[in-house]
Amino acid sequence: MARPRAGDIGERGLIEMIWDLVDRQLPGSKSESALPHPDDASAVILPDGRYLVLKTDMFVRRTDAPRGMLHSQMGRKTVVMCSSDLAAKGAKPHAFMHSMGIPPGYRPGSVMELVRGVLSACNEYGIAFLGGDLGESKDLVVAGFMVGFADRIVRRSGALPGDLLAVTGPFGDTASAFEILLNGRAAPPPLRRRLLRSVYQPRARVDLGVALAGTGAVTSSMDSSDGLAFTLHELARSSGVRLQLSKVPVSSAAKEFASIHRIPAEELALYGGEEYEIVLTIKPEALGRAQLAAERCGNSILLIGRVEEGRGVFFNDGTVERPIEAKGWEHLRRP
Amino acid sequence: MARPRAGDIGERGLIEMIWDLVDRQLPGSKSESALPHPDDASAVILPDGRYLVLKTDMFVRRTDAPRGMLHSQMGRKTVVMCSSDLAAKGAKPHAFMHSMGIPPGYRPGSVMELVRGVLSACNEYGIAFLGGDLGESKDLVVAGFMVGFADRIVRRSGALPGDLLAVTGPFGDTASAFEILLNGRAAPPPLRRRLLRSVYQPRARVDLGVALAGTGAVTSSMDSSDGLAFTLHELARSSGVRLQLSKVPVSSAAKEFASIHRIPAEELALYGGEEYEIVLTIKPEALGRAQLAAERCGNSILLIGRVEEGRGVFFNDGTVERPIEAKGWEHLRRP
Repeated sequence: MARPRAGDIGERGLIEMIWDLVDRQLPGSKSESALPHPDDASAVILPDGRYLVLKTDMFVRRTDAPRGMLHSQMGRKTVVMCSSDLAAKGAKPHAFMHSMGIPPGYRPGSVMELVRGVLSACNEYGIAFLGGDLGESKDLVVAGFMVGFADRIVRRSGALPGDLLAVTGPFGDTASAFEILLNGRAAPPPLRRRLLRSVYQPRARVDLGVALAGTGAVTSSMDSSDGLAFTLHELARSSGVRLQLSKVPVSSAAKEFASIHRIPAEELALYGGEEYEIVLTIKPEALGRAQLAAERCGNSILLIGRVEEGRGVFFNDGTVERPIEAKGWEHLRRP
Repeated sequence: MARPRAGDIGERGLIEMIWDLVDRQLPGSKSESALPHPDDASAVILPDGRYLVLKTDMFVRRTDAPRGMLHSQMGRKTVVMCSSDLAAKGAKPHAFMHSMGIPPGYRPGSVMELVRGVLSACNEYGIAFLGGDLGESKDLVVAGFMVGFADRIVRRSGALPGDLLAVTGPFGDTASAFEILLNGRAAPPPLRRRLLRSVYQPRARVDLGVALAGTGAVTSSMDSSDGLAFTLHELARSSGVRLQLSKVPVSSAAKEFASIHRIPAEELALYGGEEYEIVLTIKPEALGRAQLAAERCGNSILLIGRVEEGRGVFFNDGTVERPIEAKGWEHLRRP
């Protein structure tokens, strides 16, 4: 029998193998993080009681850059990916560094465009750029590293039955964009531009995430970049609860795209990915505080369901109840 | 005329281009680091006045792993590289993360061996392992990220005329090892083992670096992994001084290897690389404090010269004075 290869086991399988090894080789090490695995980021408690929150995320052009993405957009995205994870934990991004692997045949101008994108995102989110390292590799690889601070952090594991389930924005734009880029589906130019912008120029909910965590109203939260359905399942599992959706938050652009192609809009919203919203649970008595905080950031939060005792993720609109599959992003199956 | 490629400009050229871009696009950003470029690491001042010191370093197997290096040794080295840079700044390493790019055909067992090396180095130096990210790439790539804390930090730029020049250990083992691995030179088995260990299993001067910085005796310092001669030139340039060596610190193993092959031992010590000692300058009146701190760590510091007004790096043993070339690591030229 052939011995397995990394590609057979996959990213998530390898990560679990690594944490099993950590448990055996450094018992207690997991608890050295104030945000133990699995969570969106890691954290260390500072002497003044605040949290230093840390995140690394790797961008490999060959697997992570959709067709047509500019180098400046790749650079920008490495900052957005880390910022979104920190924001989902309630941490304000403070500084960014990156290690880049560059193919020797690469144009220096492309490398500079990439860095320009990094700097422009750092500027947009008020993050200090602290440089990094540079080496030679066959792929263009950018490993981003971000640190931020938080007075209080929000874990994936704190949801309690009775809490409200919410998201910081609607979903479906990126799944529609991948249908355009990967499956050749068409869309009228203004819609196409809007959808493609969601994958080329994502933005992270930095101020909103920090403000929401600051209210103390949020009991658990997670960045949604693995896709809405996958994120809901992770949150349910980490908190040991059942999540019941009364509606699927679909963006107007995804609705329009779905209607043109007669595909289910809710599937676009549930089984996309690379969407940098925050999925969160809120104490019902503190909903007003959370809504006020969102308004002050010029945003709103969308209530989509509630937390119950049990396991799993279900949809129930009052007429029919069905389980929501735990799929992450994959090319959408034809209806 | 062909447009240049990254490989024509090289790592150091690209890094300078990036910092020029930072200066233009985010004026003042450089000064957001308490250790502005160029230095061994970056730093942020915390509200309690201490420093958060940050470092990222990328290890690419194809270019950075000498022949025969085990995966556990590669993992270990990613921790040592970052630890040494932090220690050279006086910061105690606190936590480590990594982003890994893994070829799909890789054995999961090799990935676990690599992580085992990471964990064992974290354990050795008392560093928390906080996990990281994992993706797919053509090369095996490990981008290490480390944060540490320091009450005071030591920059490359603080050397003053009159200071003493010192190192935390002798040099030449790695250059000898590369002569064995790359140029096929022979050595008796015990010598060969000792020399190869210097490249397969380097160690960082963590406790020593932190203790020396803590004395307040150190005016400037730098990790020597770019090679002794290159490091001396960088230190001289950053501080705007001239460094005068009265002796070249050659290890006994490098002397033995040089004598077998009739090659100049001092060249092995000056133009090697991947040696994780600290090169530092010391206030003469505080030398005793520095020596005592080193002894308490079970180490000693080797005085090799002094800081003078002027520019450049020179050797002067009382009979003859000659400049020391600013070469970094390259395969040694035949005598």
